[in-house]
Amino acid sequence: MASEFDIIRRHFARPVKRALLGVGDDCALFAPDPGEVLAVSTDMLVEGQHFLAGADAAKLGHKALAVNLSDLAAMGAAPRYATLALALPDADESWLAQFAQGLFGLAQAFGVELIGGDTTRGPRNISITVIGSVPPALALRRDGAKAGDEVWLSGCTGDAALALAHQQRRIRLGDAALAHCLARLDTPVPCIALGMALRGIASSAIDVSDGLVADLGHIAERSAVALELRYAQLPRSRALRACADESLVQHCLLAGGDDYELAFTASPDARARVEAVASELGLTLTRVGGVSAGGPGPVSVYDAGGNVMKIESRGFDHFGS
Amino acid sequence: MASEFDIIRRHFARPVKRALLGVGDDCALFAPDPGEVLAVSTDMLVEGQHFLAGADAAKLGHKALAVNLSDLAAMGAAPRYATLALALPDADESWLAQFAQGLFGLAQAFGVELIGGDTTRGPRNISITVIGSVPPALALRRDGAKAGDEVWLSGCTGDAALALAHQQRRIRLGDAALAHCLARLDTPVPCIALGMALRGIASSAIDVSDGLVADLGHIAERSAVALELRYAQLPRSRALRACADESLVQHCLLAGGDDYELAFTASPDARARVEAVASELGLTLTRVGGVSAGGPGPVSVYDAGGNVMKIESRGFDHFGS
Repeated sequence: MASEFDIIRRHFARPVKRALLGVGDDCALFAPDPGEVLAVSTDMLVEGQHFLAGADAAKLGHKALAVNLSDLAAMGAAPRYATLALALPDADESWLAQFAQGLFGLAQAFGVELIGGDTTRGPRNISITVIGSVPPALALRRDGAKAGDEVWLSGCTGDAALALAHQQRRIRLGDAALAHCLARLDTPVPCIALGMALRGIASSAIDVSDGLVADLGHIAERSAVALELRYAQLPRSRALRACADESLVQHCLLAGGDDYELAFTASPDARARVEAVASELGLTLTRVGGVSAGGPGPVSVYDAGGNVMKIESRGFDHFGS
Repeated sequence: MASEFDIIRRHFARPVKRALLGVGDDCALFAPDPGEVLAVSTDMLVEGQHFLAGADAAKLGHKALAVNLSDLAAMGAAPRYATLALALPDADESWLAQFAQGLFGLAQAFGVELIGGDTTRGPRNISITVIGSVPPALALRRDGAKAGDEVWLSGCTGDAALALAHQQRRIRLGDAALAHCLARLDTPVPCIALGMALRGIASSAIDVSDGLVADLGHIAERSAVALELRYAQLPRSRALRACADESLVQHCLLAGGDDYELAFTASPDARARVEAVASELGLTLTRVGGVSAGGPGPVSVYDAGGNVMKIESRGFDHFGS
């Protein structure tokens, strides 16, 4: 069987250009861009929890890196480096080759160098740490939202949760809608360009991974503000517009998670600049709510009539009851 | 049950002094010390593979961080930050409190700030990424060994493997020897001060985690040299000197692993400086071999008579056959 070192050499040791030293020593060496600082984030994906046994290895390699890069996007950081710790039940060469292909495909698209890692035997587990570079004064933190700011959302939420609902046979999507939603679920694209373009414009930002309401709740908490979301203004994909189960639609939009869109706040004075970013990047950015004083509190969702909606599920929590 | 965010808040979110931003945002923010670069390393510990189910949580918290810090030591880097990704079968508050106590005990001893992480449900798995700071020209890499250099070892190898042999009932250690060897196995202390003191002195370095011969093999490979180890010169602890099973002793010294000592090379001209470091830090540093041209090749071990010894096991490999 291939050794741990063979696995690293064959599948994960690639030459580095930006890092001072890559895979193959006790540590990798790197520095931030001149005048910038480093941003770091870690995510762990576990078989049976975040993905099913037998999941496509290439898609898994893509997604494992994507969910990490999404955290850099939410910070306005430029992706630079990643480390990979991988536990596998066996050294399946075909699985490893496909996983590496998915991971490096996304890494190359965003200029990420894999500079370190560890492989070991164990229940399948993928733990990635990403490192980006950002000017310290321009980092998009969660704690900068101010009363009077507007709440914005990139793209739309809910498609990944709709794909899950199909897989769980709660609904049945048509072929085109299913393909669209599965792509959102399996191979999300982190909003890196958007995060960097929002430097100096957004007052706070977060990526939507656990569900829109839950993630906006982190901004409310860290910024000590109250947030209001206007349900009717939430953008809906064609697949979601075609869904007749309004309770499911509400769940998908507000609490579905796995969206990897950016939710952010900005002053009304910055509205034209936000719209210019949307136009420049060819993205849909939608005003979906506002920020008020009196927090930190739960995120309130208002219906078209101006009444507070009762939200059944608020987002994903791995140890929630 | 406690939520994922409660777990982080209660057990792992501590104020940071050095980092610009710690736990609680999409990313943490940090910078190297002025004039220095960053060193990063990742290690993953899996239940059933690196530790037994039911292992003491505080010792596990200590060891999971220690094995990572040992990689910084081998690079000559000063420890600065860590991120923790943790999969747990359940949110056991008592286990978490003890794990955090062990981890933060060591972190505080070495000035490490926990700046990010992820907790999720799954088979118990601990993945830590550590980040240190080092002047780029003084980093102790694996690729700097030169023909004519001497090979040095800190402390002695074999005690952790001897503790394992006792646990596996291959031998029976007395109480004092067992306590000593178990401490080496369960709560290793990374050689941080030594690594930093060897900046500008050692020509290459590695930490001994997989076994002395296997780890020196990495220096031979990366430096494209041949290494010779003189078996009779290898320092032995009192516990190992008392062991009558010479085959086991050889395994422990050369291939036991889990030692977290530093093996390094230095020019004979640097001998006095190495000895001064040993004296200043109160450590034993022993010359155990030499470097010659003609590599990269396997590490040769010579007996007292100058004959090449046949080595049965060469070190630990998670996917080795």
